[in-house]
Amino acid sequence: MNQPLRALPILLIVASLSPASRAQDRAADGPRYDAGGKLIRPLDYREWVYVTSGLGMTYGPAQAAAGQPPRFDNVFVNRESYRRFLASGKWPDKTMFVLEVRSADSHVSINNGGHTQGGLLAIEAAVKDTTRFPDTTWGYFSFDGRDGLADAAAPLPTTATCYACHKKNTAVEQTFVQFYPTLFDVAKRFGTVRPDYDPSRKP
Amino acid sequence: MNQPLRALPILLIVASLSPASRAQDRAADGPRYDAGGKLIRPLDYREWVYVTSGLGMTYGPAQAAAGQPPRFDNVFVNRESYRRFLASGKWPDKTMFVLEVRSADSHVSINNGGHTQGGLLAIEAAVKDTTRFPDTTWGYFSFDGRDGLADAAAPLPTTATCYACHKKNTAVEQTFVQFYPTLFDVAKRFGTVRPDYDPSRKP
Repeated sequence: MNQPLRALPILLIVASLSPASRAQDRAADGPRYDAGGKLIRPLDYREWVYVTSGLGMTYGPAQAAAGQPPRFDNVFVNRESYRRFLASGKWPDKTMFVLEVRSADSHVSINNGGHTQGGLLAIEAAVKDTTRFPDTTWGYFSFDGRDGLADAAAPLPTTATCYACHKKNTAVEQTFVQFYPTLFDVAKRFGTVRPDYDPSRKP
Repeated sequence: MNQPLRALPILLIVASLSPASRAQDRAADGPRYDAGGKLIRPLDYREWVYVTSGLGMTYGPAQAAAGQPPRFDNVFVNRESYRRFLASGKWPDKTMFVLEVRSADSHVSINNGGHTQGGLLAIEAAVKDTTRFPDTTWGYFSFDGRDGLADAAAPLPTTATCYACHKKNTAVEQTFVQFYPTLFDVAKRFGTVRPDYDPSRKP
């Protein structure tokens, strides 16, 4: 047997273990858990891919109470899942979203109108994991702790409102892609908008 | 002469040309120019590092006119410069910012209050380049074209208001780091906030 043919099986094994191959079914840069199974709050999420922001949205448990000043929410997703969504309109298993809530400040520096982003108020997360969450597919997390942000969090109980709201009101899978201006078009192109998504539905 | 010693000069040459060495003074993932010297509009800026958003800020030439609905502006910076700023509080040469302006929509889907981000309205850029802009250090660009976004843009003339405003009102170098909630603290820690920065100054 000549040298190139002898090398072929090794090449095939290497190819089958490559990140590109593993990446077919799950994202490699998504959630990490501690020894107790809690989701670790990622410290580098500001280097993940930015998806969108809202101001004063009635969105999620960290929304401001009525009469309180509005808040910004910034949404980030792990880079690999973002790229996979661009190529398919679908979120791979192990996709992780981070929702960052910040104060909305006004009259900062030369800014005479509108709002700029201020201090961090809350961090929440959503994770797609068909193994960990066989009944709900996605798990939802809050890193609110007694003394500020917690380093890790257990999933919220499935009775939390986020589960029912994400299941009922989202445009793509259980994600609010209708609010992600660059990604909603991707989903429309790939035909992955849920057939039951009704843009006029109010909760 | 033995083999290891013969290889040494080559290793030194390779080391002196390595990305890590070149990265000391300029970012490698920043601006790209076409053959005519125009700045190429990056197609992947949404995968750069998100810095902040504002809503209805009186910021830049793409601001909404009085009486018009407010607009979101999202700011992105090239990844290498972001990481260098985290480590030094300074922007390396070839730093590039992208300012993306989007409509602020209301009552989209389940959202009953506040604003969500809609269609793209404008893209602008700021580039630090001491060679191309020896007098101003930074160059400012607008990708507004007759038929939508231009693929490339020449720097705005130095008489454009952005040059004077960035020179006078910014907190770090010629950048509005006072509006970047995660980076202003970095600049304070490294002592790179401009001594003449006055947070109460209005234009």
